[in-house]
Amino acid sequence: MKSNSVNASIITIGDELLIGQTIDTNSAFIAQELNKIGVWVRRRLAVGDVYEEIWQALDEESRQSDIIIITGGLGPTADDITKPLLCKYFGGKLVVNEEVLAHVNYLFEKVFRRPGPMLERNLKQAEVPDVCTVLHNARGTAPGMLFKRDGKVFISLPGVPHEMKGLIVNEVVPYLLSAFKMPAIVHKTAFTAGQGESMIAELLKDFEPSLPSHIKLAYLPNYGMVKLRLTSRGDKKEEVEKEMIPYFEKLQELVKDFLITNEDEGLEIVIGKILKAKSKTMGTAESCTGGYIAHLITSVSGSSAYYKGSVVSYANEIKENILGVKKETLLSVGAVSEETVKEMVNGAISKLNVDFALATSGIMGPDGGTDDKPVGTVWIAAGNKEKVDTLKLNLRFDRQRNIGMTATNALNFLRKFILANS
Amino acid sequence: MKSNSVNASIITIGDELLIGQTIDTNSAFIAQELNKIGVWVRRRLAVGDVYEEIWQALDEESRQSDIIIITGGLGPTADDITKPLLCKYFGGKLVVNEEVLAHVNYLFEKVFRRPGPMLERNLKQAEVPDVCTVLHNARGTAPGMLFKRDGKVFISLPGVPHEMKGLIVNEVVPYLLSAFKMPAIVHKTAFTAGQGESMIAELLKDFEPSLPSHIKLAYLPNYGMVKLRLTSRGDKKEEVEKEMIPYFEKLQELVKDFLITNEDEGLEIVIGKILKAKSKTMGTAESCTGGYIAHLITSVSGSSAYYKGSVVSYANEIKENILGVKKETLLSVGAVSEETVKEMVNGAISKLNVDFALATSGIMGPDGGTDDKPVGTVWIAAGNKEKVDTLKLNLRFDRQRNIGMTATNALNFLRKFILANS
Repeated sequence: MKSNSVNASIITIGDELLIGQTIDTNSAFIAQELNKIGVWVRRRLAVGDVYEEIWQALDEESRQSDIIIITGGLGPTADDITKPLLCKYFGGKLVVNEEVLAHVNYLFEKVFRRPGPMLERNLKQAEVPDVCTVLHNARGTAPGMLFKRDGKVFISLPGVPHEMKGLIVNEVVPYLLSAFKMPAIVHKTAFTAGQGESMIAELLKDFEPSLPSHIKLAYLPNYGMVKLRLTSRGDKKEEVEKEMIPYFEKLQELVKDFLITNEDEGLEIVIGKILKAKSKTMGTAESCTGGYIAHLITSVSGSSAYYKGSVVSYANEIKENILGVKKETLLSVGAVSEETVKEMVNGAISKLNVDFALATSGIMGPDGGTDDKPVGTVWIAAGNKEKVDTLKLNLRFDRQRNIGMTATNALNFLRKFILANS
Repeated sequence: MKSNSVNASIITIGDELLIGQTIDTNSAFIAQELNKIGVWVRRRLAVGDVYEEIWQALDEESRQSDIIIITGGLGPTADDITKPLLCKYFGGKLVVNEEVLAHVNYLFEKVFRRPGPMLERNLKQAEVPDVCTVLHNARGTAPGMLFKRDGKVFISLPGVPHEMKGLIVNEVVPYLLSAFKMPAIVHKTAFTAGQGESMIAELLKDFEPSLPSHIKLAYLPNYGMVKLRLTSRGDKKEEVEKEMIPYFEKLQELVKDFLITNEDEGLEIVIGKILKAKSKTMGTAESCTGGYIAHLITSVSGSSAYYKGSVVSYANEIKENILGVKKETLLSVGAVSEETVKEMVNGAISKLNVDFALATSGIMGPDGGTDDKPVGTVWIAAGNKEKVDTLKLNLRFDRQRNIGMTATNALNFLRKFILANS
């Protein structure tokens, strides 16, 4: 299988990756984009700002892969050593590239609007090895650089994520499509919620061995959901897709009781599609999730068509004063209770003037737990003008994960409520 | 420098990392924890669920590092091949470990509360190579495994983040501290906001060459901030720290006009500390950031001491009905305007009953821009009962980054307002 494919390695450079101060999101983006066009990413390697280790990484990865993508180490500061290293590695010398220089000047004058003469360190951004092809970085001053040696392609990109992304989409992908004959890779993804990985695997225990060897099934558990992904490859995209259809249908059938969507999309997108199709609106009243559900929903472009807003009622007085939760409810059963989240939903429906509302209240930790209501106790309510349903969770994770798990469970609970009550 | 230190490699296993479907947060966590105790992470490598490539990665990394940490590939599903591979690699055979079996039984009966007999695939979690030391995974069914060969230590951990984290903190770190003599590593971090990386570097252009060779300066730009980190190492922690003091003070002095904090902490923590010290409260009124600022603030444990909540007024009617923004304001100058964010702040101060409020309204894209107000136009306001200040941004990124940049700028604007007006 792998012998017919185009392989790539991704090398990310920077001490910050090795001391854990930065999470490497660049590699995931690059891998996604390469994968879409049929490039198989075999390895991802992160090394520090250390000359010999970068050099060694280039040697190692070029022995294994056809394409080597390098990010980071191109900035204007002294800890960035990649450009002179690449220059030496490929036996060139640094020369000013007039087009890059013009672009750097343009950015400083027109976009950044910096007064005064440009800094020497910024002018240096226009220097590139004379043995590379320059890739235009429309979003920043550090150009991409492409080198070739022994049939292998090396592409160096800046580490700033939005600059790297622009270069991948506008320069790297078109180049690779023209330079390599790619196999077709097809992924089909379904999401389940409400069952763990091992229970879903049990439903699929006869299905998995029935797959042809070139079709792979992967399980990707995430915050209370399991993503199921079938991957296949072949010469022609249409044929690969056609062959996949019955397997993907069978997969969906087997997990149908827990299936949320057969697209690679989050719950916030699924709910948005349902609401748009029904021309309904929603709002949220969040205590323990503190705006995270609102953030997930509004991360979707176009969400203003169905989402009106949230009352993040972190303090009890906000629950009372804006959402109209009764003082006696808060005094008698407390903020983390079935009755409070019911009243929060009713308040949100009326104050936000929406068809559906979702409310959360819980103890996310690490502090604030009691014997009666330990850390991880969460109440969720979803409702419309006629009816409110509730759900209790007992989570056992750290604060960030408790917030994430609450959001996933709440959104899935709302999804089911909308489907059952409209 | 490196010859006196303990080196580690992190190997993450899983196709999902190579097709970019999952962002690797595990490596960052592991790197942080190892770094804290003086282990230098030389390389991080991600490979797919491919037998030969995992084998090769073990060979390669054990040639270079003293400690090899492996995560992923230990789950109960068929795409997880790591355990049998490790068994063969270290020449053992799989045997049921009674303690792990008891723990798996306990989890299924008491914690997951699954009815009926346990699945074969879950029972298999209790099988481990007879040549390993088992590391107790209190949070899940897949145990950690420790192997030794030729003076190198190999530790295999499950890929589920909260299980891996528990194992690192409770098992791996104590073991490494007992097994290796660690050098002392000290980091000192300062955050600046309001200037780009190259301008900050210009302020530090004479400082950086003045550092002794064992003290390194790194620049970590992130959403409108620049993190500046000094790193040093030596035999005794107290001596390393003492030597660092004058350099870190000089660094802060040089960037003082843009300095936010001299701790490794985000703006939401800095603002929380200021408000707690002054016994003041705050709230937010978010349109374009859609709850993201509320989420950042409430991610901090204990934030309920100063943060009351947010009105996420995504729809204009919420701005009017809850925050009291005037209809004529919305009709005449629109939701994305200086006047609207001012009225949002005043509404938030009164409705949320807080000392300080922060408001955002803007166009995050990719749709919704006009000639007058292109995508990236943002108004921010911060105020108290006496006064409201405003700030306009012209951003030029994608939706997620525009939201992140707006949040950073807004929080920094509020921070300055609080310091200037209390």
